[in-house]
Amino acid sequence: MALGMGYDKQECSVARALEVIGERWTLLIVRDLFLGVRRFSDLQLRLDISKGVLSERLNHLIEHGIVTKTGTGHAEYELTPAGIALHPVLFAISSWGREYANPDNRSTRIMTHLCGAALDARGHCAACDVTPPPGDVISTPDPDRPGGRTDPVSLALRGPQRLLEPVRR
Amino acid sequence: MALGMGYDKQECSVARALEVIGERWTLLIVRDLFLGVRRFSDLQLRLDISKGVLSERLNHLIEHGIVTKTGTGHAEYELTPAGIALHPVLFAISSWGREYANPDNRSTRIMTHLCGAALDARGHCAACDVTPPPGDVISTPDPDRPGGRTDPVSLALRGPQRLLEPVRR
Repeated sequence: MALGMGYDKQECSVARALEVIGERWTLLIVRDLFLGVRRFSDLQLRLDISKGVLSERLNHLIEHGIVTKTGTGHAEYELTPAGIALHPVLFAISSWGREYANPDNRSTRIMTHLCGAALDARGHCAACDVTPPPGDVISTPDPDRPGGRTDPVSLALRGPQRLLEPVRR
Repeated sequence: MALGMGYDKQECSVARALEVIGERWTLLIVRDLFLGVRRFSDLQLRLDISKGVLSERLNHLIEHGIVTKTGTGHAEYELTPAGIALHPVLFAISSWGREYANPDNRSTRIMTHLCGAALDARGHCAACDVTPPPGDVISTPDPDRPGGRTDPVSLALRGPQRLLEPVRR
């Protein structure tokens, strides 16, 4: 289970969670799955990591029920309900990173509710007074902070993207 | 800055955040700092990691403004406001871990508001309709799920512990 993560003497839920999602690159893979990147080669284009690392991380996520692999020829990877439940984790990390780890306190992408209103740092839509599920969230690049990535998947993500819908390219 | 984390081509706030808090053990150190564990030797007792790893992680957190070191003879480590702002991140990871990564869907500790009501999975107190700051949160071991750790710091944490207050032992 622990796959050498070495948290086995740490009993709390944080340690248990980090055994599943705490390895390097894992949460960035999950981020891209939320953005609708589903193919192995597309994930690789976005992340610039080796096939071996990507494959190891995806298999770990599949093993722990976070990701399913569908199709045969052109396999696609999708988040399971347990994976989709990671949305608040990613949202909290992203909000904190924007505020405390980004030089200009901005995100590359802005999250809005389907209604059009921006979400606050906790993922809440004040206009509708709901915390929408990720499928009701639109991720749009901040026009004032254009990303520099020019791989085809990142270019396809330069428009608004409804979370969990497959990216079109 | 990136200290070999290799996320430098990943522009989003998640990647920036993970450069600061994404290394192994780092979030467990932050968890213990929230629980009021402040001394180097106490952190080491709780985490069972080498002095070298603990020291490297703490220095990385200090460098990035998450932790301050006070005192000289018996130095103490404390979270800065940027570190305290990680509370929603830890809370989200812990809530997810309890639900999806723990065999029995329970946490070792229960979080309650100062008012006495339990917090929900998003850290909200329904009784008061507030999301309390961590300093207003009490962490109590779940009596039905006793932890097995018997180091002196873990024993001192077997009672209710107000977050951010120094653990008494």
